[in-house]
Amino acid sequence: MDRLQHQFEFLLQADKLKTVIRRNYISDGSKRENDAEHSWFFALAALVLAEHANATIDVSKVLAMAVLHDIVEVYAGDTFIYDEKAKESQEAKEKEAADKIFGILPEDQRSEFRSLWDEFEAGTSPEARYAKAIDRISAVILNHASGGKAWRENNVGYAQVYAINQKINDGSTALWNYIGSLIDEGRKTGLFFEGG
Amino acid sequence: MDRLQHQFEFLLQADKLKTVIRRNYISDGSKRENDAEHSWFFALAALVLAEHANATIDVSKVLAMAVLHDIVEVYAGDTFIYDEKAKESQEAKEKEAADKIFGILPEDQRSEFRSLWDEFEAGTSPEARYAKAIDRISAVILNHASGGKAWRENNVGYAQVYAINQKINDGSTALWNYIGSLIDEGRKTGLFFEGG
Repeated sequence: MDRLQHQFEFLLQADKLKTVIRRNYISDGSKRENDAEHSWFFALAALVLAEHANATIDVSKVLAMAVLHDIVEVYAGDTFIYDEKAKESQEAKEKEAADKIFGILPEDQRSEFRSLWDEFEAGTSPEARYAKAIDRISAVILNHASGGKAWRENNVGYAQVYAINQKINDGSTALWNYIGSLIDEGRKTGLFFEGG
Repeated sequence: MDRLQHQFEFLLQADKLKTVIRRNYISDGSKRENDAEHSWFFALAALVLAEHANATIDVSKVLAMAVLHDIVEVYAGDTFIYDEKAKESQEAKEKEAADKIFGILPEDQRSEFRSLWDEFEAGTSPEARYAKAIDRISAVILNHASGGKAWRENNVGYAQVYAINQKINDGSTALWNYIGSLIDEGRKTGLFFEGG
């Protein structure tokens, strides 16, 4: 019973992810996406696109990473991938948040989930490289579908988008070829911030 | 390239799940939950609570079910579990929607995902029984946390909540014991519609 109480308390804290708002809009541009919606979309994309990973991967591990990867943002908030200033303090804030949120769980699950999250953050295992590629792809395809709304609103230009997203190639060359061509095409269709 | 185009088209259609609104509120009662948020929460809960399943289960299969289980609602809309009238036409509508949304995918994935969805709907395999229990539990704990807001707004009384949710026992007796006690306790704390 004590285990169950800790597990349900963790779920209730995690539920707050539904109120952590990202910069990206959903595909129809009607509203900004929250972390819970994004985590689901990431898991779905990971499932659908798994055949394109560069390495042989354990898809179920990637699904667990997708579901858990943003949970620290319940306490640490979302950091926009193009915000270099915010990214300086992101790691320390997120580690503290990870101690706090995973700390609610029974000891064995605390270590299991924390080490999955650490593995995702490190980005070096085949699963983490693929997962990080899918995380980036999710944001690109929504920006592409919504006419670059979040990029233009946040003064993000083509060069930044290209530089951040070419890392998709570490997880999947096939997906990077596709996404890279969407990004290049976006120069003609006005997806990017043009000033600055 | 053709496969990739179909896969990305599927993901863009599925993205609409972020605009399909359920009756339930999120835990703090601040807004109603959408299907994408719910699908993520279901996957997280399935991961955290897996040890309590009655049978030995393949958790990765349950995670895939969680991610896919509501996708038909992009076309069929959400059906409130206590709405007996709407439930009469639900099955036919959802099967048609399944043909349409899974039909976007390459043939092999279309069959793979459709059969996972059919398995979930049938609710007879160990994974589907556990998954259906988690789907129900997700709604109960959010109603419990938000003071029964969706139940009271939709005239749902204790007897209905008890009747629908005792099926949790098919997937997990340990979880039903816990959830059943939350439901019973809710009679004292006013979670339910009292008229009718």
